[in-house]
Amino acid sequence: MRSDRPPPLARTDVPDSDVVLSSRVRLARNLTGEPFAHRCDPDRSRSITAMLRGALLQGDLDENLSWIDLETASGHDKQLLVERHLISRHLAESTTPRGVAVADDETMSVMVNEEDHIRMSAIAAGLQPERCLRRLIRLDGELETRLNWAVHERWGYLCACPTNVGTGIRFSAMVHLPALRMTGEFAKVRQAAKDLHLAVRGYYGEGSETAGNFFQISNQRTLGVSEEELLDQFQRVLIPGVVRYERAARDVLMDRERLAVEDRVHRDLAQLRAARLLKADEAMRRLSSVRLGICLGLIDEIPLDTINALFLHTQSAHLRDRVGGTLSPADARAVRAELVRQMLSL
Amino acid sequence: MRSDRPPPLARTDVPDSDVVLSSRVRLARNLTGEPFAHRCDPDRSRSITAMLRGALLQGDLDENLSWIDLETASGHDKQLLVERHLISRHLAESTTPRGVAVADDETMSVMVNEEDHIRMSAIAAGLQPERCLRRLIRLDGELETRLNWAVHERWGYLCACPTNVGTGIRFSAMVHLPALRMTGEFAKVRQAAKDLHLAVRGYYGEGSETAGNFFQISNQRTLGVSEEELLDQFQRVLIPGVVRYERAARDVLMDRERLAVEDRVHRDLAQLRAARLLKADEAMRRLSSVRLGICLGLIDEIPLDTINALFLHTQSAHLRDRVGGTLSPADARAVRAELVRQMLSL
Repeated sequence: MRSDRPPPLARTDVPDSDVVLSSRVRLARNLTGEPFAHRCDPDRSRSITAMLRGALLQGDLDENLSWIDLETASGHDKQLLVERHLISRHLAESTTPRGVAVADDETMSVMVNEEDHIRMSAIAAGLQPERCLRRLIRLDGELETRLNWAVHERWGYLCACPTNVGTGIRFSAMVHLPALRMTGEFAKVRQAAKDLHLAVRGYYGEGSETAGNFFQISNQRTLGVSEEELLDQFQRVLIPGVVRYERAARDVLMDRERLAVEDRVHRDLAQLRAARLLKADEAMRRLSSVRLGICLGLIDEIPLDTINALFLHTQSAHLRDRVGGTLSPADARAVRAELVRQMLSL
Repeated sequence: MRSDRPPPLARTDVPDSDVVLSSRVRLARNLTGEPFAHRCDPDRSRSITAMLRGALLQGDLDENLSWIDLETASGHDKQLLVERHLISRHLAESTTPRGVAVADDETMSVMVNEEDHIRMSAIAAGLQPERCLRRLIRLDGELETRLNWAVHERWGYLCACPTNVGTGIRFSAMVHLPALRMTGEFAKVRQAAKDLHLAVRGYYGEGSETAGNFFQISNQRTLGVSEEELLDQFQRVLIPGVVRYERAARDVLMDRERLAVEDRVHRDLAQLRAARLLKADEAMRRLSSVRLGICLGLIDEIPLDTINALFLHTQSAHLRDRVGGTLSPADARAVRAELVRQMLSL
């Protein structure tokens, strides 16, 4: 596992990247004739893992995947995978035989023995869920020629959790909503999302609701609709609606409180460039502010890619990887500050 | 009244300027045969003012003084004089006929009809009370040839307030004690000062105790000791003691928490350079931190003089003077931020 490469989501020459950091689509699939993952004993989990690993690594897939065995991986490597959004915290902390297959450029990962036997997901910068869906459908089709998925003729794909039954699909977008938070309108948007059956989570999932004003927005319906209908609604209606709200809030801020916004974003950038000690949550908060400043045209000397990359590289396991050893919390703050200063230097 | 000149106390090639911003000595004198200032009716106050103005402006004094009539001066001009420490807030707000004579370089001022008929003071950068005292003794001697001071043969010079009776002298030093505040030892020093009959006030006198970690330390005894004894004690014992305590606290900080101190001072400098809106108390607080950083050798690109001058120029009346008109509080914050950014730019 390498930590020094840029994240795939650092690209900014993509649709709606001022608000949408990345799009992600995930398909859940289970093997027919096998118990769901949480009902398997270790031997069964191990044999399922081996079978799926074999199917994923056969040379004739369109994707070129590498396997990481999570039963034997170090805690550090698992943490790195979580920080890079390649596996869930749940899969990292599980003790069952399990693994993940990852594409070279990290835009695709296939978790084995998470909540379902297989959860494959693809990620793309900006608002590009269709691109992700096409890749997954192709991979799913290839895997179907060598594996038998559990499908019910009326309900669709069977999953461990009933909310995933049907298409087994989840579309999600990581959106940056600092202006909606500053104008106090975020609560309204959150309620509207709820009414539209969208789930809103924080950057690190549940319980991180306000970190850096990033939110994962995802569909919750999977039953009784087709993948194409879900895609169309997500891509053309739901996320564009959120994007419009955020842009309107940014316009309001610039009209009514431009100097206060300039003050805020320039101070945050200055502090990131000056700090000698920097905690993770402070880094996230100030980077979020600088990202807004760049999108508003108030800061022009720093590429958005640099900020997007810093969200990744300032996380704990990435810092540990950088120094090649353990890091006390105090040392991590110093290393984080040095990295940020270096990447944002004039 | 001009606001655009540097303050006399911005000089740093003087003794103990790392801790002592300036020294000030004041002599209180009253005319014999006249009621104390607070017992005069306006006509009497006006005639006393005229008499003292005449004595102060006669051409043969060693000091070259200019007169400002405070009965007719604008509120803005009075505020400027207060900010430049040339008159007291008390004299600015009084309604009685009164005035002040000021030396060209603003290192001497003579208030007429403040608490006493005359309060003359001299100021010098760093720890130089002797220099101030020599100037005042010479001026006092010159004035004595043309005015009769109220003197009691046993008690000494008579003053409106009993605490000034005797020599009528007060020595004070403006000291910068950020490290003692950061290490939490300031309370001990304050108690020690009290035990030694020293008064400790804030930058703007009573009620501004913590502004920028600046403190005015002054003697409270004036009766039964000579000017020379007071000078000797103040210059060789009392203030050097405070200076030693502060320097020891700075050493402790640098030994034990160097990175935290670096973090603090560089962040404060960065914010001053980045802010678009800056309140007076925030400016004072961060400038104080930067001053510490310069004295500790952590910041080397900014002269101490610049910081000392900014303490003066970021005050409200000075900002008003700069834009040549009235300033709303919001506009003052913007003008202050712009000035600071400009004076601290790389």
